[in-house]
Amino acid sequence: MLERPEFKQQLIDFIQAHLPLARAMGLRADYYDGQRLDLSAPLELNINDKLTAFGGSLYNVAVMACWGMVYLQCRERGLDPNIVVGHAEVDYLLPVPDARIVASCQLKPGAFDEFFSRYDAGGRARVELHSQVNCDGRPALQFKGQYAIVP
Amino acid sequence: MLERPEFKQQLIDFIQAHLPLARAMGLRADYYDGQRLDLSAPLELNINDKLTAFGGSLYNVAVMACWGMVYLQCRERGLDPNIVVGHAEVDYLLPVPDARIVASCQLKPGAFDEFFSRYDAGGRARVELHSQVNCDGRPALQFKGQYAIVP
Repeated sequence: MLERPEFKQQLIDFIQAHLPLARAMGLRADYYDGQRLDLSAPLELNINDKLTAFGGSLYNVAVMACWGMVYLQCRERGLDPNIVVGHAEVDYLLPVPDARIVASCQLKPGAFDEFFSRYDAGGRARVELHSQVNCDGRPALQFKGQYAIVP
Repeated sequence: MLERPEFKQQLIDFIQAHLPLARAMGLRADYYDGQRLDLSAPLELNINDKLTAFGGSLYNVAVMACWGMVYLQCRERGLDPNIVVGHAEVDYLLPVPDARIVASCQLKPGAFDEFFSRYDAGGRARVELHSQVNCDGRPALQFKGQYAIVP
């Protein structure tokens, strides 16, 4: 897939304009190609007493990687709806001492087909997305969240 | 129950010393009596594009209310172990437009009995705790998390 910097920039602009805590985390969009979105934040602003990533920061990078994916899928179709997370689950598997926390949301093919067909039919569009933070090539945090468009 | 300000202060000191993101959120410990812990943060630092509480901030206040409860139960017994969250689930039920986000962790009687008997026996101490953010007297966010002491 080719990178789509113009859409990535729209997400960066949204975060900068509207989410002071994401700014305080130093949250950044690193990569977007229509199927994968990577968000990251520096350990320095998100550290804990054990000098690894704070659990709340790990969650925030992961929940925003999936939220950002929904946002960008909508923006690619010229939509700008109100997207909310309704339910989320997170497993903390390993501490993350890396200088940057990176969360990736990778779509399966057709992940948004039902979402947009429901949206087009005037129904309640919902999608479950997953994201992951790795450390030394192993999963350190696994996240799944249910997102919906609300009127 | 009587308030226990000296323990509440230990949690405040911990947050101030070790968690820059919690400081950036303006996270505060408001109340602790041995059975209930209330943490709060101002909307202003944790707002989103809809002028309600950012989902990541809601999670952080809730996960820290339960983490803080484990920390204070340990401190009351003179312990200062390494407490981690292993798994968490969160339901976002209503938007939170209030000037302060308040998460409460309320213990059931005996909630820590098994935790400390396992700890005293040298086993792996674990506990599942719940916290909640209310808005206009109704639950706006429900959180549950599994916490453990790690060596």
